[in-house]
Amino acid sequence: MARFYSVIPAGGIGSRLWPLSRASAPKFLHDLTGSGQTLLQDTWDRLAPLSGKERILVVTGVAHRNAVTEQCTELDRLNLILEPSPKDSTAAIALAAAVLMKREPDVIIGSFAADHVITDNEEFGKCVREAVQVAATGKIVTIGIQPTEPSVGFGYIKLASKIVGAETAREVEHFVEKPNIERAREYVSSGRYLWNAGMFIAPASLLLEVLAKTEPDLYKKVMELADSWNTEAEAKVFEENWPGLKKVAIDYSVAEPAAADGLVAVVPANFGWHDVGDFAAISELQSGGKRNHLAVLGEAKVLSEKSNGILISETGRLVALIGLEDVIVVDTPDALLITTKEHAQRVKNLVDSLKNTGHSDVL
Amino acid sequence: MARFYSVIPAGGIGSRLWPLSRASAPKFLHDLTGSGQTLLQDTWDRLAPLSGKERILVVTGVAHRNAVTEQCTELDRLNLILEPSPKDSTAAIALAAAVLMKREPDVIIGSFAADHVITDNEEFGKCVREAVQVAATGKIVTIGIQPTEPSVGFGYIKLASKIVGAETAREVEHFVEKPNIERAREYVSSGRYLWNAGMFIAPASLLLEVLAKTEPDLYKKVMELADSWNTEAEAKVFEENWPGLKKVAIDYSVAEPAAADGLVAVVPANFGWHDVGDFAAISELQSGGKRNHLAVLGEAKVLSEKSNGILISETGRLVALIGLEDVIVVDTPDALLITTKEHAQRVKNLVDSLKNTGHSDVL
Repeated sequence: MARFYSVIPAGGIGSRLWPLSRASAPKFLHDLTGSGQTLLQDTWDRLAPLSGKERILVVTGVAHRNAVTEQCTELDRLNLILEPSPKDSTAAIALAAAVLMKREPDVIIGSFAADHVITDNEEFGKCVREAVQVAATGKIVTIGIQPTEPSVGFGYIKLASKIVGAETAREVEHFVEKPNIERAREYVSSGRYLWNAGMFIAPASLLLEVLAKTEPDLYKKVMELADSWNTEAEAKVFEENWPGLKKVAIDYSVAEPAAADGLVAVVPANFGWHDVGDFAAISELQSGGKRNHLAVLGEAKVLSEKSNGILISETGRLVALIGLEDVIVVDTPDALLITTKEHAQRVKNLVDSLKNTGHSDVL
Repeated sequence: MARFYSVIPAGGIGSRLWPLSRASAPKFLHDLTGSGQTLLQDTWDRLAPLSGKERILVVTGVAHRNAVTEQCTELDRLNLILEPSPKDSTAAIALAAAVLMKREPDVIIGSFAADHVITDNEEFGKCVREAVQVAATGKIVTIGIQPTEPSVGFGYIKLASKIVGAETAREVEHFVEKPNIERAREYVSSGRYLWNAGMFIAPASLLLEVLAKTEPDLYKKVMELADSWNTEAEAKVFEENWPGLKKVAIDYSVAEPAAADGLVAVVPANFGWHDVGDFAAISELQSGGKRNHLAVLGEAKVLSEKSNGILISETGRLVALIGLEDVIVVDTPDALLITTKEHAQRVKNLVDSLKNTGHSDVL
C-alpha cells in the first residue's frame, strides 16, 4: 500500500438532483445520507485509512476551491488540482496520474468519485487493498458492484476467469454500456456481470501508457499540463491546453481499450454502494426499504398525513404534506421542486428547460 | 333603496385555506380570484353601487383594523365595528343592525360575507334590489343560489309559493343544514331547493325583534353594546358584555325561527357564486373547467411538466412541478403546503394539528 495514492475527481453537477445540486454547489458538497457530513467528506474519510490523509488528491472545478478546502481541512495545497472548466473524467484522472507520476514514478493511483455512497468502509478497504495488490502486477483494476436489480442506469462489467493467486479478483472480458431492460435482466440472471461503479486502481504509468495510444492528443496536452502544474508556466499552459481538451469518459479512453488488451481486472465488491443519481435513489436510501415512510433531510418542521417519499429542506420552513404518494419535495431558498419518484429522472430535462428559458440564475 | 345599508361581516379565518389564510391575514384579505384585488375589495365594489360607499359598514376583528382600512380607503370611521374576539355571525350582524337602527330606525340592512366570489355584479344588484323591496314588506329575505351540483358543503333553502307582486321572490318553507350526499341529490333533482349562501336582507328592526325572542340574553347584550358604541362608555361595556356573547350562527338564531313563522323570503340568484371554501374550489374557479390546467395565483416563476391543479405563491420563488395530478401547492414565506384536490378538505384538520403541536406561530 506504500505506492498507493487516492484521487478524488470531484466534478459533475448532478442535474437530476436540482435544485439541491447546483453548478455552484454540486452533489458532492451535500449531505445526502443524513450522516452529518457531505459526500466528499464521506469519501475522504473512507480513503484516509487506506492511503493516509497526506496522500489524497482532489481534482475539482476552480469554482469549488473554497468549498473543498473548507470541507477537507487536511487537504494538502499540493494535492488540489483546479480545473478551469469541466472536461469529463479522462482529463481529470489523467492529469492527476501525470502530476503524481512526476512525484513518484511507480505510484499506484485509485480514483473514486466524490459523490457515491458506500455503506461498509471496512469491506471497501479490503477491496481496495486487493485491487492495489493486483494493480501492482501491471493491471488496471476496477471494483465491480454485485447488481441488486437489472438497472439500466449503469454500465456492466463482464467477468472472465479468476486471477491466479488473487483472493477474489477476476479478469475482465469487457465493459458494456448502459443496457436496455431486457439485456440488463440477462446480465443480472447470468451471474457473470457486475455494475461498473467507475472506480479504477492502476499504476499511473500504465494508465497513461494506454491513454497515449488511444487518445494521443489528449495524452500530450495532459502531460504538458502536468509538467507546468505548480510552476511559473502553469497559467500560460493551462490557458493554451485546457480549452481544447477532448471530453471523454475514462471508461472509453482507457478502461475498454485496456480490457480488449487483457489488461483489466475486477475485484467484486462486498459492500453496499449507491450512486444516488436522483431523488428516487436518495429516497430509497433514506427509507431503508420501509414502505409508507417519509424521509426528511434537513431541518424542516414537517407535518405529514398519508404521505410518503422524501422531503429535502434547506429553508427550515414548515412543510405540510397531505395525501401524497412517493412524493419528492426539495425546498431551497430560491427554488422549489415537487415531483414523484416515478418522474425523478425527468429532473434532468427540467434543468435543460431552465437553461433554455433563461433561468440560469437558479442552476 | 334609500333605506338600504350594506353590512360586511369580515370574519372567519378560513382554516381550509391555510397557509394562505391565517389568523393574521384571513381569507377576505387575499386575492383568490386573480382579479388584482382582495375578496373584501371585490365585495365593497359590488355593494357600493347599491347602497352608496358611505352606506357600507364593516364588522371585523380588531386585529384586522389596519388591513381593512388600507383596503377600503373610503370606509367611514363610523362604519367600522371592531370585534374584540370572534363571536360568530349573530353577534356581528345583530350589532351592526343595532348600531344602524339607532341612526335610522327604518334601515334595511343587507349582510354579505366578505369572502365569497360573485361573478356577475349586475345580476347580483338586481337580486339585492328585489330583496330590498320584499324586505320592505316586513320580511327577512335571503338570496338563494341555484345548485350546480349536490354539494354537501352548504345548507339548503326549501322553496314555497311565489310571493304575489314580487318579480322572482318566493316564500321559504324552511332551511336545512348541510345534508349527506343522498339527501343532497334528492334536493337538487327536486328543483325545490337552493343553496343558502348566508346573504340576508331585512329591516334591522325585524331582525332584532326575532333575535329578542330566540336569544334574549344575546339580544340584550348586543343592544347595550350598540348603545355604548362610539361613546365614552364603549370600552367598559365591551369589556363587560363581549366575552359572554353566545357564539351562534345567524341561520340558527334568526333565519330558521323566522322561517318557521313565515317571515322569510328568498330571491333566487341568477349569478355565479362561490364560497371558495378550500383550495380545490379556488382551483376549479381558476381553471374555469379546463382539464389539465395548472392555475397560478401570485408572482411565481413556474416550470410545469405533466402537472395540473393550482399553485399559489407568495414568495416569488421558482417552482418546478413534474408529473403531479390535481396538485395543490401553497408557497408562503414560512410555510409550504402540498396536497391534492381530493384532500383539500383535510387542510382544516392539519390546522387543528398545528394548534395541538405548538405551531401556532404559523397559524
